[in-house]
Amino acid sequence: MAIWRKIHETLRGEITEGLYKTGDRLPTEKELSERFGVNRHTVRRALAEMTAEGAISVRRGSGAYVAEGVVDYRLGQRVRFSQNVTELGRTPAHRLVRSEARAPDDREAEHLRLRPGAEVLVLEMVSEVDGLPVLYAAHSFPAARFPRLAQDFDETRSITASLRRYGVIDYTREWTRITARSPSRKVAAQLRQIESQPVLRVEALNLDMSGEPIEHAVGWWASARTQFVV
Amino acid sequence: MAIWRKIHETLRGEITEGLYKTGDRLPTEKELSERFGVNRHTVRRALAEMTAEGAISVRRGSGAYVAEGVVDYRLGQRVRFSQNVTELGRTPAHRLVRSEARAPDDREAEHLRLRPGAEVLVLEMVSEVDGLPVLYAAHSFPAARFPRLAQDFDETRSITASLRRYGVIDYTREWTRITARSPSRKVAAQLRQIESQPVLRVEALNLDMSGEPIEHAVGWWASARTQFVV
Repeated sequence: MAIWRKIHETLRGEITEGLYKTGDRLPTEKELSERFGVNRHTVRRALAEMTAEGAISVRRGSGAYVAEGVVDYRLGQRVRFSQNVTELGRTPAHRLVRSEARAPDDREAEHLRLRPGAEVLVLEMVSEVDGLPVLYAAHSFPAARFPRLAQDFDETRSITASLRRYGVIDYTREWTRITARSPSRKVAAQLRQIESQPVLRVEALNLDMSGEPIEHAVGWWASARTQFVV
Repeated sequence: MAIWRKIHETLRGEITEGLYKTGDRLPTEKELSERFGVNRHTVRRALAEMTAEGAISVRRGSGAYVAEGVVDYRLGQRVRFSQNVTELGRTPAHRLVRSEARAPDDREAEHLRLRPGAEVLVLEMVSEVDGLPVLYAAHSFPAARFPRLAQDFDETRSITASLRRYGVIDYTREWTRITARSPSRKVAAQLRQIESQPVLRVEALNLDMSGEPIEHAVGWWASARTQFVV
């Protein structure tokens, strides 16, 4: 592992452990370079990575400060991004990147139980906590059942509220599959993180209250800002 | 993203989607280099990474074959590695890498509710599925309550069975926290994977049936071989 990377891991570990807390000022570049026995350039490389992740923010002439910590995101039967984030005392937001109607891929067709020829409506979305992107996801819905979902979302700013317009008053998580991946350039850019920082890949299926599949989603979470709690 | 990496991601995606199934032979290096419009060296780099991850195995003079797929590991209140893996029709094993008694770190002391001066007994372990390492973890126990746990594990080959020797007939998962990280060199070596492949970092706390914390664990899962199902 490169030295700057070790410094980065060490400092991030110390933030996670609570040695440095939200809003704390980190030691100066000079102090850090003495502590790790490296030149300032190496320390700067580590701090740049932490800045890119959103773990710290650098104020000119003042130093590096620990940013808001990771989001402890609770996974369960009823997963609602906005509700989860609000309960943590933080501010959620969604931003629609694009939407399209298209033929489903094999997994979408299988999980949404689509008939041959049926289309999916895909909403690609960035979800934010306190203004920082934490999730980039493609949400796929049966197009025949939710024909105007992109416009509905534009008006309601909420998937839950949009689905309600079609009579879906509630829905539950059938399953969630979690693994880790290196982000593609596109995903890293949407999450405003560097490509060498892993992302959590999450695939999920939601059912309406009669057990019909209504949403298949694949999302990438910024792992520097997210822990899932089960 | 480097070209070999894109090829690697594409092929891994096709295996995940089921286009190539366990035991299938992949196209030859020549076919792959034509398909992706690159030289064989680039294809070989991608195949080497997939081999290192355990996604494929190369048989000399015969080609590259898709290895056993990912483990869909079910997380819940009662998490038992061996039982989970056995239920998937696959073969679990544990290997004790080292054990030590030492002062707890802050998180161990907090979660295990240790009094000042109390020690933890730490078992570092590699857990395997069908002979491939999938998890490297440090399991920490209150040393005063489980003084001979390393020897017990040596005899029983099971944490569950070892705990039973101290009257712990059952235990439950209090919480699990999941995120993604780049592996340290040590973790990558224990998991027999390359360092650029992310790992799933899992921290967990187990309680006995009276609600006493008995085990705090931090583990790293090979993400190329593991999906958590919630």
